Amino acid sequence: VRQFADVGGDRTDALVERMLAGDRTALARLMTLVENRAPELPALMSRLYPRTGRAHVVGLTGPPGAGKSTLADRLVAHARAAGRRVGVVAVDPSSPFSGGAVLGDRIRMQSHFLDPGVFIRSLSTRGSHGGLPRAARDVVRLLDAYGMDLVLVETVGVGQTELDVMRLADSIVVVLVPEAGDAVQIMKAGLLEIADVFVVNKADRDGADRMQMELAQMLHLRPPSPWDIPVVATQAVRDVGIGDVVAALARHREHVTSTDERAGRAAARRAAELVDILDEELRRRLETGLAAAPNGVLASVRSGETDPYSGAMRILSDATTLAGLVRTREP
Amino acid sequence: VRQFADVGGDRTDALVERMLAGDRTALARLMTLVENRAPELPALMSRLYPRTGRAHVVGLTGPPGAGKSTLADRLVAHARAAGRRVGVVAVDPSSPFSGGAVLGDRIRMQSHFLDPGVFIRSLSTRGSHGGLPRAARDVVRLLDAYGMDLVLVETVGVGQTELDVMRLADSIVVVLVPEAGDAVQIMKAGLLEIADVFVVNKADRDGADRMQMELAQMLHLRPPSPWDIPVVATQAVRDVGIGDVVAALARHREHVTSTDERAGRAAARRAAELVDILDEELRRRLETGLAAAPNGVLASVRSGETDPYSGAMRILSDATTLAGLVRTREP
Repeated sequence: VRQFADVGGDRTDALVERMLAGDRTALARLMTLVENRAPELPALMSRLYPRTGRAHVVGLTGPPGAGKSTLADRLVAHARAAGRRVGVVAVDPSSPFSGGAVLGDRIRMQSHFLDPGVFIRSLSTRGSHGGLPRAARDVVRLLDAYGMDLVLVETVGVGQTELDVMRLADSIVVVLVPEAGDAVQIMKAGLLEIADVFVVNKADRDGADRMQMELAQMLHLRPPSPWDIPVVATQAVRDVGIGDVVAALARHREHVTSTDERAGRAAARRAAELVDILDEELRRRLETGLAAAPNGVLASVRSGETDPYSGAMRILSDATTLAGLVRTREP
Repeated sequence: VRQFADVGGDRTDALVERMLAGDRTALARLMTLVENRAPELPALMSRLYPRTGRAHVVGLTGPPGAGKSTLADRLVAHARAAGRRVGVVAVDPSSPFSGGAVLGDRIRMQSHFLDPGVFIRSLSTRGSHGGLPRAARDVVRLLDAYGMDLVLVETVGVGQTELDVMRLADSIVVVLVPEAGDAVQIMKAGLLEIADVFVVNKADRDGADRMQMELAQMLHLRPPSPWDIPVVATQAVRDVGIGDVVAALARHREHVTSTDERAGRAAARRAAELVDILDEELRRRLETGLAAAPNGVLASVRSGETDPYSGAMRILSDATTLAGLVRTREP
């Protein structure tokens, strides 16, 4: 344990103290450590772990253009009016042209940037190597430990990584618009099985009634479940229907907190997280270790002399080399 | 090396021989091994590696409802008419309701199912644990080794995993429809930076001209590049514009084959693949090893007595335990 706490431990400890005392700059710097997957993460997160579990973590997903950011903005305003503190995590793809996360929709959030009860963070997918769901999970933990009552996690796309990100949420809102396609498209995108609440936004547009009806029909085809997924109509830009979304979320939270299956899910989640944390560190050590061995397998694979599979087999069949590789620490 | 070749080696060898001799059943069974991430994968793929690199691998991506499956169907028909053999890999999300990949659009492909020059495979995302891009890559390699001239890879969503899947393609076609949203939505989905060819499908609909113009304007904002990304208008259901897509793809293939940067990209790709293969096997060993140690760290994390980060630190700081874990082979 010492070995890990030692890596920048003093600095991190001081940041954690300041963050827990309410310092926003310290919170932002800890988030950067998390986003960069710094080596001191396990030590940092094990310190914060006992402080977490209080926030209601709500995921917002759906196709681009559904109005998720506007809905998030309204939910923030609603929660603030009720005196609740709010964190927002926006998972954005990165672009080599804009040089970072696309901030178009974040501009709408500017009214909240000066509010000390709100903290907004964009997470870019750049160079994530499958690490984005992990970074999002740890950023949410930081906001939880910081004392936020509500943490909104918004994704831009609706692909597999975005669904993985959504797994960290207590409640998942799938936002659709009348033109988002028919029931088959929604099923194809894997949205039906993750939704705890459906929102049909821009409900004044043509086709909104048809979409609500199709959703209701699809939901009828599900096997019986203790939670009936509500379909809520909103017009986020006009602030219509937001109270219904908030009420649905409150009911869902009450539902998951009171069911027995929650403990079983939490145990499985912790076990999966242990493997994830170990895997992330082993991958890091592998990359460092392989690069540090000159004229080794990596060089031979790079030049094309050895194919990647044969190179991997050479390393995996040699226990001593393998043990040496995973023992390697970063400088 | 023996250790790996031994795992079901005889059976796999026989399958490979039969597959290379043109046996479709053997090809299908090898694909199942790949999809299940069987332990003999490195040995299998290292045998096939020298047989690959001949096929033109074309990725088709874009929002749900853009008509990718119809376009794929037309591209298959076009290639078959030219005497080329075609593989199709459809990356579909899975649904607990349908019990597997959603096959709605696959039905359209049925005309090709009886054609011995076509092989179609759906890959489900179920339980992929980030392994889907790897499975897709290896399935494409199998089709390449089998002797397909063209391999089409189609994804349903437009999220991060789907973008990762697209990385295996030589040429990426981004399919849009007039109602797919404006330029900002396309940039937000990360589609602009991966496209080698843009297709505006359903080009008879309102807004098609506007979308083509917006795309052209966006493309003008890019830094100068040796490849000018073409924007092709199609009506796939009416078989309009397919020849233009084929021509654009042929030009792009010619372009990437003739540029110097290709060798550098291939070296980096091989190096990344080595790390991926090792990481996948280490994760597998970790999971097996942790589960095999009763009353160990896993049990303590599962019960909540230890948090996942502290559990990971305990294992990582003990080189002997760690070496033992990653040495563990599956039974």
